[in-house]
Amino acid sequence: MPDFSIGVDLGGTNLRIAAVSRDGQLLEKVTLGTKVALGRDHVITEMCDAIQRLSAQYEEAGKLLGAGIGIPGIIDMQTGTLRKSANLPGWEEYPVRAEIERRLGARVVLENDANVAALGEQWLGAARGVPNMAVVTLGTGIGGGIVLEGKIWHGMNGMAGEFGHVTIEPDGYPCGCGNHGCAEQYASASAIMRMAREAIASGEAPSLAKAASSDAEFGAKSIYNLAIQGDEHARRIFRSFGRYLGILLAGLVNVLNLDMFVIGGGVSSAWDAYAPNMFEEMRGRSLVYAATAPADPLMSQSLMSQSLMSQSSANRAGASAQTESRTERKTIITPALLGSDAGLYGAARVAAVAG
Amino acid sequence: MPDFSIGVDLGGTNLRIAAVSRDGQLLEKVTLGTKVALGRDHVITEMCDAIQRLSAQYEEAGKLLGAGIGIPGIIDMQTGTLRKSANLPGWEEYPVRAEIERRLGARVVLENDANVAALGEQWLGAARGVPNMAVVTLGTGIGGGIVLEGKIWHGMNGMAGEFGHVTIEPDGYPCGCGNHGCAEQYASASAIMRMAREAIASGEAPSLAKAASSDAEFGAKSIYNLAIQGDEHARRIFRSFGRYLGILLAGLVNVLNLDMFVIGGGVSSAWDAYAPNMFEEMRGRSLVYAATAPADPLMSQSLMSQSLMSQSSANRAGASAQTESRTERKTIITPALLGSDAGLYGAARVAAVAG
Repeated sequence: MPDFSIGVDLGGTNLRIAAVSRDGQLLEKVTLGTKVALGRDHVITEMCDAIQRLSAQYEEAGKLLGAGIGIPGIIDMQTGTLRKSANLPGWEEYPVRAEIERRLGARVVLENDANVAALGEQWLGAARGVPNMAVVTLGTGIGGGIVLEGKIWHGMNGMAGEFGHVTIEPDGYPCGCGNHGCAEQYASASAIMRMAREAIASGEAPSLAKAASSDAEFGAKSIYNLAIQGDEHARRIFRSFGRYLGILLAGLVNVLNLDMFVIGGGVSSAWDAYAPNMFEEMRGRSLVYAATAPADPLMSQSLMSQSLMSQSSANRAGASAQTESRTERKTIITPALLGSDAGLYGAARVAAVAG
Repeated sequence: MPDFSIGVDLGGTNLRIAAVSRDGQLLEKVTLGTKVALGRDHVITEMCDAIQRLSAQYEEAGKLLGAGIGIPGIIDMQTGTLRKSANLPGWEEYPVRAEIERRLGARVVLENDANVAALGEQWLGAARGVPNMAVVTLGTGIGGGIVLEGKIWHGMNGMAGEFGHVTIEPDGYPCGCGNHGCAEQYASASAIMRMAREAIASGEAPSLAKAASSDAEFGAKSIYNLAIQGDEHARRIFRSFGRYLGILLAGLVNVLNLDMFVIGGGVSSAWDAYAPNMFEEMRGRSLVYAATAPADPLMSQSLMSQSLMSQSSANRAGASAQTESRTERKTIITPALLGSDAGLYGAARVAAVAG
């Protein structure tokens, strides 16, 4: 009869809702075809109805601890409103949290989507039992979330973890944020497409040009497929991607010296195409990483799986990390494990912890 | 009859020691001409003798809580040894903390010098009452220390805050650390001298060439003096310095979203020569900074002084920060207040908190 909480992923095209027990067991997950484009009130009504249906099913078994909602945008944690969200027009200046709390009669936490993804991976994913970690999500842009001592690091007003807008080329490509040379102009799906367009326009990448004209869904994934088939132009794109991702990560390691960086988002699965260059840059550019890198960082995934298998719970992992000599701890860079569910689990977690 | 602790600044040329009461009053400060070059045992003996003399004077009044020692290098906090220190050859692989504790019969904390400087500014300096802040020290290189929720953020193994080695020009100048384009190659005293040498070598900066040949102590300070007198070549150097410092800070603000960044170290006092360009870059390159910058950042110093005057203690400051709306909090960038004493105070503080 476990107490449980509700996690909501209110991003992109679908609305996803999960009931998760306090100890991290998924009870049920539903995906609604709710169209965000139909507006705020429609979305909130559909969301609250679904949460109520889901809760009712499990309330016989345990207590509802609350609901956490992961939202792409900047949240004012104090007022429970959206300060800024490109994907949710009309949601700003509206008491989102208060309205949902009123309808549900339960405690609600709004949280940035990258932050809940970080907490999800830290709770149940690649960074299980790792107290200090960050997630770098590689999608259309680059998102980020930081977890310190098991809790989301919000910074002064919830804007920490904007890794995508760290300058990595001072005179580089313009970014939508107004800056030049932001990381997300060099190591995201959009960056891969920009490099492909440039290569095609140069006339020196016929394989890419051919794929672009014959593949109706030509995108970052197509270029990855070419890269693993050995296409030199596609491989070059991922080498550049890895280089810049490595520059970003090297800086983050120098600043934060975290135990683990988890690479998530759609493009993270192209790991074998970009990781070698990423690690090369990190070794060359971060004295902190060089001093703490595993002997073979490309093995870090399996190292991590081993260490997970030897730990039955996050608590035991914390205890063993404390007794282990600090000098022997390694900086692990590893792909995410939970995919798009990281945010769902993390959203459920913030509600359970707050409740 | 206040309890007190001892802070030690074991860096550079002098050995400095202070007795500081638990509530932050300086009881006494001594500077020893101890030559670090005479070796580890000599330095430890002189240091322990001086600490004992100083403690004896104040032990009638209050209890010695312990001694904190700020050291330029990487500390293994668990074992109390130096992992790496360029300025203290022969100190590695030696049980520094255990030996000093044995001699003093008191608790000893070893801490990185930039970390204690950050804690000192947070306890009694520019960031008094500010829970989350970082210090960026501009000297021969660039150092850094981060304080989160009033405590030094060490990271996984004490290497957090290496701001000087964050890459800001991927194909830039080589750095002693093995990387290219580290921040400290662009915004430190060494960087100022490098830019001056380049300007002189170009033959197009006669004013700098003349100063270099006539001033036996030609250095960053001389170039600053030329800049404030309006010399265009000197001003250009500080504009470039400010630009790169702004790029570094913009990245740090995007990642950490801290309440305050305190600029310390010898070069920080050239504030009026570099700050306008620094702020310009930060506004353009950090959406987080742009969203949270004071209306006139060059006024941030006086804003801060005002807010300090209205607070009688760090506790009250913490309370007022919590009640204030998060959205109204501003990212303050301000020069350090305590100069080289920041480390002394911070070292005393770590001992008092640990004791």
